Amino acid sequence: MEGIYDKIIIGIDPGTNIMGYGILGVKGKNPAMIALGVIRLNKFDDHYMRLARIYERVLGLVEQYLPDEMAIEAPFFGKNVQSMLKLGRAQGVAIAAALARQVPITEYEPRKIKMAITGNGAASKEQVMEMLKRILSIPPENLTDTLDATDALAAALCHFYETSKPIPAKVGAKSWKEFVAKNPDRVK
Amino acid sequence: MEGIYDKIIIGIDPGTNIMGYGILGVKGKNPAMIALGVIRLNKFDDHYMRLARIYERVLGLVEQYLPDEMAIEAPFFGKNVQSMLKLGRAQGVAIAAALARQVPITEYEPRKIKMAITGNGAASKEQVMEMLKRILSIPPENLTDTLDATDALAAALCHFYETSKPIPAKVGAKSWKEFVAKNPDRVK
Repeated sequence: MEGIYDKIIIGIDPGTNIMGYGILGVKGKNPAMIALGVIRLNKFDDHYMRLARIYERVLGLVEQYLPDEMAIEAPFFGKNVQSMLKLGRAQGVAIAAALARQVPITEYEPRKIKMAITGNGAASKEQVMEMLKRILSIPPENLTDTLDATDALAAALCHFYETSKPIPAKVGAKSWKEFVAKNPDRVK
Repeated sequence: MEGIYDKIIIGIDPGTNIMGYGILGVKGKNPAMIALGVIRLNKFDDHYMRLARIYERVLGLVEQYLPDEMAIEAPFFGKNVQSMLKLGRAQGVAIAAALARQVPITEYEPRKIKMAITGNGAASKEQVMEMLKRILSIPPENLTDTLDATDALAAALCHFYETSKPIPAKVGAKSWKEFVAKNPDRVK
């Protein structure tokens, strides 16, 4: 895997019932989907069994795909303190699996990810998947029963966009339009 | 270490600023303190540096002391969803370090731990420490600057009490008093 891509990003959408993952490979400026899937946790009643499963599977993915970076979808607000504690634990265990193999982690709010992929921070899962299909040219047969994994792949793609942005001109301009207006002599 | 004790319990009090730990050795029916300490996290501004530190140190303790079981102090309620998410992550990372070495985990609410050690679910840290000193015969010189670790050692001791309770007589009695009243012929 390492020989084919310049960089591999693992995206994780950690939940306490279903955890989604997406593996993105980058060759030059072109991102491509390598893998997509879900880890189903609702078959385990025991909370520790779920956490053990998350740790084991995320560590397995890290060892299999050798990602250079991890992007996680991380909601900052939730219904109640009880559910946030559980979500925090699920995130913590997934984060530990990356830390165990020295994979740096960046987190993105769901709204930010949706905005990066579709241009709309309130887009539906279906809209996100439609855009992913187009951007990554994913054959439809590779996308059965994986809607829960969409957000994870979207997190990885969002991270690719964020980390491959050109460094902005250090002239205090907030946009190219403003930059051109302020610096007409520097535009040919 | 393994040769001297029948069982070793690691107690963890996971916080986002300071994480306390206590190692308890059990020989027959006698618990003894092996180690007590804190992992200071407030020197790191970055949340991931803190999580990485927790993972690394808890894994280090597990590898050093080879505990048979882990007991964690786990509050179920907190001020707000944001702080509970962070606490959940800190707990998750510590839990993952135990899971990584197949150490079974049991969690106890702070109130339950205080009750087990002092008989008062609302006891102060100082009261808990006073009882630990007496129960475990800890020399005062081993207890400087470790009040933050008290709850962790208390969690380990609480776990020892919980797991070494005699199995209740299967006659539907709720207490020995009731058992004796119901079964006068079985008491000599």
